[in-house]
Amino acid sequence: MPESPSKVPEPSLSRLSVYLRCLRQLVKEGVRTVSSAKMGERCGVSAVQIRKDLSYFGEFGRPGVGYDVQHLLARLTEIMQLDRQHRVVIVGAGNLGSALAGYSGFVLSPFQVVGIFDNNFSKIGRRLWDLEILDVHHLPELNRELRGNIGMITVPADAAQEAADLLVKAGVRAVLNFAPTIIEVPPDVSLRNVDLTRELEVLCYYIDRLPSPEEKAAG
Amino acid sequence: MPESPSKVPEPSLSRLSVYLRCLRQLVKEGVRTVSSAKMGERCGVSAVQIRKDLSYFGEFGRPGVGYDVQHLLARLTEIMQLDRQHRVVIVGAGNLGSALAGYSGFVLSPFQVVGIFDNNFSKIGRRLWDLEILDVHHLPELNRELRGNIGMITVPADAAQEAADLLVKAGVRAVLNFAPTIIEVPPDVSLRNVDLTRELEVLCYYIDRLPSPEEKAAG
Repeated sequence: MPESPSKVPEPSLSRLSVYLRCLRQLVKEGVRTVSSAKMGERCGVSAVQIRKDLSYFGEFGRPGVGYDVQHLLARLTEIMQLDRQHRVVIVGAGNLGSALAGYSGFVLSPFQVVGIFDNNFSKIGRRLWDLEILDVHHLPELNRELRGNIGMITVPADAAQEAADLLVKAGVRAVLNFAPTIIEVPPDVSLRNVDLTRELEVLCYYIDRLPSPEEKAAG
Repeated sequence: MPESPSKVPEPSLSRLSVYLRCLRQLVKEGVRTVSSAKMGERCGVSAVQIRKDLSYFGEFGRPGVGYDVQHLLARLTEIMQLDRQHRVVIVGAGNLGSALAGYSGFVLSPFQVVGIFDNNFSKIGRRLWDLEILDVHHLPELNRELRGNIGMITVPADAAQEAADLLVKAGVRAVLNFAPTIIEVPPDVSLRNVDLTRELEVLCYYIDRLPSPEEKAAG
């Protein structure tokens, strides 16, 4: 492990997640060792980049042999703290919150949605999947029992900071914010933002600006 | 404009989207000029970074005066190609696709969802918001009328490449992929991936590894 985990560049961490997916697939296929070149091909990342990303965490490969798939998978899973269950609470039972509460991608993952909260009295008490929508104002107390350690914010922009404050008060250690606004959390709580409009805006920039296959071939 | 728009780093483009949001807010507040320092404070980005990001596209500010808010907003909107309507088609009418089809963040945005497709006969023909769920196998023909130029993929991983192929055949110029897998599109179609599990995995890495406010103060 590096001395200061916060020194590992975020893009490297994001790629570790891709490597994990690749390694899980290799295990399924019964592959026992893999070279960085082969893994790179599968992930769409260069072999050099893979070796660099892994070097933050120690020595993994053996020259001429490659990586032991099972071993690398186990170590990366441990490094990313995915060898334990994470309990997710969602604030905002609108369309997006509901979709996330029922997200099939979480099945067989270390993430389990344990609670969903809203401030709308017409929603509180209603069932959503196998959960009951709870009153967001009671989040800090109710989370003592729910033991959520990750919060997701799916409320409108103007309610996002209040949602974040309640999640922090409830003791979550990480927040994934889907509201299109900047929120603040204490320095020991990790925060990531997923902003759909931003993703779309970046896509738009490229529309009709990328070379066609013919132009690309012509160099 | 830079000679080769694909040479602008993606993180810069992603920040342009943040600056746009900030500038729209400043216009609402009646602010007419803003310094890079002031804008940086609002966006959580350094003034140096803002000046660097904008420098890819020309000269905007006046020393000692700052940026003309209206002018910079208009120019960035044009550069990002957000001065026109973009028509979005969604493949996958599950929870996430339905949530995106009804996403309130698109109201007042240049993005309009014009069609949603699925391959499940029990869903095809049903209404979703003000749309009818259409048969994905007819996407290329139906898009002649819908004129979608952006596709969103919200199908399971194993159906994602087929969805991408149909979107490309239908003529979309950009694809936002929510399926947790790597998909391929021709080089002149822009592609971005939003992967919720990946975002969560990166968050997990930081859990209990960030310094508390006290540790941070102690240096």
